[in-house]
Amino acid sequence: MAAEAKRRRRGGGRAGNAERRGTAAIEQMPWSPPVNIDRPVEPLTEEGVQAIHDGAMRILEEIGIEFLNPEAIEILRGSGGCTIDGENVRMGRDFVMEMIGKAPEQWTITPRNPAREITMGGPHFNFGNVSSPPSYWDLTTGRKVTGNREMCRNLLKLSQYFNCIHFVGGYPVEPQDIHASVRHLDVLYDKLTLTDKVSHAYCLGKERVEDVMEMVRIAGGLTHEEFEAKPHMFTNINSTSPLKHDYPMLDGWIRIARRNQALIVTPFTLAGAMAPVTMAGAVSQSLAEALCAVVLAQVIRPGACCAIGTFTSNVDMKSGAPAFGTPEYMRATQMTGQLARFYKLPMRASGVCAANVPDGQAMWETSNSLWSAVQARANMIYHAAGWLEGGLIASPEKFVMDCEILQHIQRYMDPMITATTPDDIAIEAIREVGDQGHFFGIQHTQDRYTTAFYQPFLSDWRNYEAWEAAGGIWTAERAHQTYRDILANYEEPPMEPAIREELAAFVERRKAEGGAPTDF
Amino acid sequence: MAAEAKRRRRGGGRAGNAERRGTAAIEQMPWSPPVNIDRPVEPLTEEGVQAIHDGAMRILEEIGIEFLNPEAIEILRGSGGCTIDGENVRMGRDFVMEMIGKAPEQWTITPRNPAREITMGGPHFNFGNVSSPPSYWDLTTGRKVTGNREMCRNLLKLSQYFNCIHFVGGYPVEPQDIHASVRHLDVLYDKLTLTDKVSHAYCLGKERVEDVMEMVRIAGGLTHEEFEAKPHMFTNINSTSPLKHDYPMLDGWIRIARRNQALIVTPFTLAGAMAPVTMAGAVSQSLAEALCAVVLAQVIRPGACCAIGTFTSNVDMKSGAPAFGTPEYMRATQMTGQLARFYKLPMRASGVCAANVPDGQAMWETSNSLWSAVQARANMIYHAAGWLEGGLIASPEKFVMDCEILQHIQRYMDPMITATTPDDIAIEAIREVGDQGHFFGIQHTQDRYTTAFYQPFLSDWRNYEAWEAAGGIWTAERAHQTYRDILANYEEPPMEPAIREELAAFVERRKAEGGAPTDF
Repeated sequence: MAAEAKRRRRGGGRAGNAERRGTAAIEQMPWSPPVNIDRPVEPLTEEGVQAIHDGAMRILEEIGIEFLNPEAIEILRGSGGCTIDGENVRMGRDFVMEMIGKAPEQWTITPRNPAREITMGGPHFNFGNVSSPPSYWDLTTGRKVTGNREMCRNLLKLSQYFNCIHFVGGYPVEPQDIHASVRHLDVLYDKLTLTDKVSHAYCLGKERVEDVMEMVRIAGGLTHEEFEAKPHMFTNINSTSPLKHDYPMLDGWIRIARRNQALIVTPFTLAGAMAPVTMAGAVSQSLAEALCAVVLAQVIRPGACCAIGTFTSNVDMKSGAPAFGTPEYMRATQMTGQLARFYKLPMRASGVCAANVPDGQAMWETSNSLWSAVQARANMIYHAAGWLEGGLIASPEKFVMDCEILQHIQRYMDPMITATTPDDIAIEAIREVGDQGHFFGIQHTQDRYTTAFYQPFLSDWRNYEAWEAAGGIWTAERAHQTYRDILANYEEPPMEPAIREELAAFVERRKAEGGAPTDF
Repeated sequence: MAAEAKRRRRGGGRAGNAERRGTAAIEQMPWSPPVNIDRPVEPLTEEGVQAIHDGAMRILEEIGIEFLNPEAIEILRGSGGCTIDGENVRMGRDFVMEMIGKAPEQWTITPRNPAREITMGGPHFNFGNVSSPPSYWDLTTGRKVTGNREMCRNLLKLSQYFNCIHFVGGYPVEPQDIHASVRHLDVLYDKLTLTDKVSHAYCLGKERVEDVMEMVRIAGGLTHEEFEAKPHMFTNINSTSPLKHDYPMLDGWIRIARRNQALIVTPFTLAGAMAPVTMAGAVSQSLAEALCAVVLAQVIRPGACCAIGTFTSNVDMKSGAPAFGTPEYMRATQMTGQLARFYKLPMRASGVCAANVPDGQAMWETSNSLWSAVQARANMIYHAAGWLEGGLIASPEKFVMDCEILQHIQRYMDPMITATTPDDIAIEAIREVGDQGHFFGIQHTQDRYTTAFYQPFLSDWRNYEAWEAAGGIWTAERAHQTYRDILANYEEPPMEPAIREELAAFVERRKAEGGAPTDF
């Protein structure tokens, strides 16, 4: 479909704007992580919550989880609350609930720019960029290509540019042109210089985890003591469902817990594949896998900042392909939200789709997944911009399109929209206009029109004739142009030269030392 | 953009399937109007509900509504509850609430096929086709063209085909090749023969209203007495905001109330244009305009089946263009839902967008509007499939894409997804698979996999390579092919030959009489 992509790109009527450096690429909403003012959507009754809790507890008590890491086993053995048989660990529900009870309900992550601090827990929620796709798609190439550093840097620039992106997750695309032994050094250097938002470490071996923590510490200009005083970064680990935590994930989890950074555990439980075909079963299993990691963290450091993630969806039973943004996905997310509140733990969810290109399907699947995350009261919404093909592709057009939806959601949570003061009811304005006039020109409108409504940056609200006269450009193509405009106007956030030099020197030294082993 | 459209159509890899008559075009969900199992989203506090109610009542008490119809004025004068000054009618809140209290909270509409009965009120909701666009767009033409009878018939066939379309609203596109004096006769003949679902009459002059009621009666094989025993069809009138009801709408409203058919009133209150720039003000005005029509109906026939609609959105304050599916639109819909429950009246909302083509923007806007309708507990969701350009364009591709979203919503309301019986928690299945196997092959999965998950008919869940090998077809183009497949496989619902002949004879006679005046 390269031909289609090229044709679509050539169709752009705004090519002349491509390089208009020096003016704002778009008018966007200011930085302001949203607060959820709606009641959560709760498909489970109280008995349903108890049934799923009981299921998760029975999995932990009767079946157990494999901890494929000797150090984790020894820590759990020392806790006195586990029954250990080789790598299998079982935990009684009283012990689990006691340990989980030590985890704080709400906490913050503070990046190098403290103004970009995010809050995890309660009504707070935060959106992050697409993380970890090996491949990349844009309208310039019109096909799926291997990710490289330039693509990764460009997506990091988008992540910084958009105020509706509140944290930077994993690599927005895997830069496969950088050797795996030093990839984390280059990408973290890029991430910490191109963005000033909350950052993330992969748990892929001790060197990577320690290097990333050290680089985040340096970027923040922090002493080791200051770094460990509260979370300045986070990791996200995935269990190896069903019922396993693997060595490197647990190793990183332990290291990050010891240094008091933020810990998120997200089982990837596709119902019908790695989990039961029933959503309640898949959610129960996901919770068991997540909660035992939270227990481990609390044994290491009582009060460690933990959150549980959901990545429960279904598969296409004809092909085994994962599906996203489905009714089952939405309900599993909402169910997990109910249980996260039951356990008093912050929650992570995602903005995801199965679509391969940024078309209609991509948007209804992504929209469904994002809204279900919000309805579940998730606090951290991963992959909220740029994800395609079940996470195998990152796309800048999709990134830009998703950010329009994210801004919609932010604005939707503005209590101003539903205010009912006498000025909002506006009886005098209605009386003034009566049955003949219109409201455009009256003072009540003039006083409010600049802030009364959401202003999109990508949606085209012109009528067909005006839209056609301007080139008849479909959304994905408009998003392509916006992405190019943003890159042309991108400005790095400030960083003290001494810190930048220290970061670069660290990268140089660690590269000279060989980086990290690649035998994971 | 005709060239793009043609290229896109030519790109289709499924052209060979276009005419596969005799096999099902798609696998779709069965006919089953959904029941809303979620709590509504309620942005207003109890005080907020009272403030908007008070605003609506003050508009009716202090400012009044223009009723541009002498018969309506006389009816209201005779009620004893109104203060009338020329065409201006004011009503006290006690009288309004007393009259509204006569309207039933829940009722049904029964079309010629009683199995297609729909319920208005409570948790029941129903989706209808796009109604009334003057223009048409599909990927074959790739441009906006004037609607004609063939397009209208094709969209009626889609409305019949899709089980997630529960009623047929206005003309799915205006057939402008039929003279306006007889257009209603031809379209109603098409509608009543090509579909067996609930149908609608426009209030555009007494002849049209009476003709449609008579044709619905004939199509149902009903006596006049049977027809008037309960609603078999409905109308939807729009006020002429601000604060007016015009002559033909009121004339039809009166006629339909007298014959005990269903009555829906939907003010079109764009905040900042025909209503205050504040959403609470726009909603208050919309309610006042709607409620006074309900009062009129109750004076004519206490217990008349009435519902109130919302069409409150905002305009783009730069251009004045209407916007749809915005945060303000969603909240206005939810707020109206709270007030509809306060007044104990069924509610109508819509699935709408400002986009000009069936692309990403079209889908996020439509999805937002549809979900907000569901969250508001709307009972009738107009324009749920096929709408583009703020209602000026009907599109079969958009129709098919929207139906995928409608099926998602129907499935989302299936309590099976969130069931928590021991079989759903599935501890034994989890134990059986343990930490090594997978769930594909086990009995628990085999017993459930055919019905466990939503099966899309349009979403493509294949990986990129398989999707690309199959032609790399974007959603709109897949929808185009689906639409052609459906038309090729379309079968008319059965109708007794005698009834069909009676309908045709009625049309012939009324045409011979000249149809309806065209001076409206």
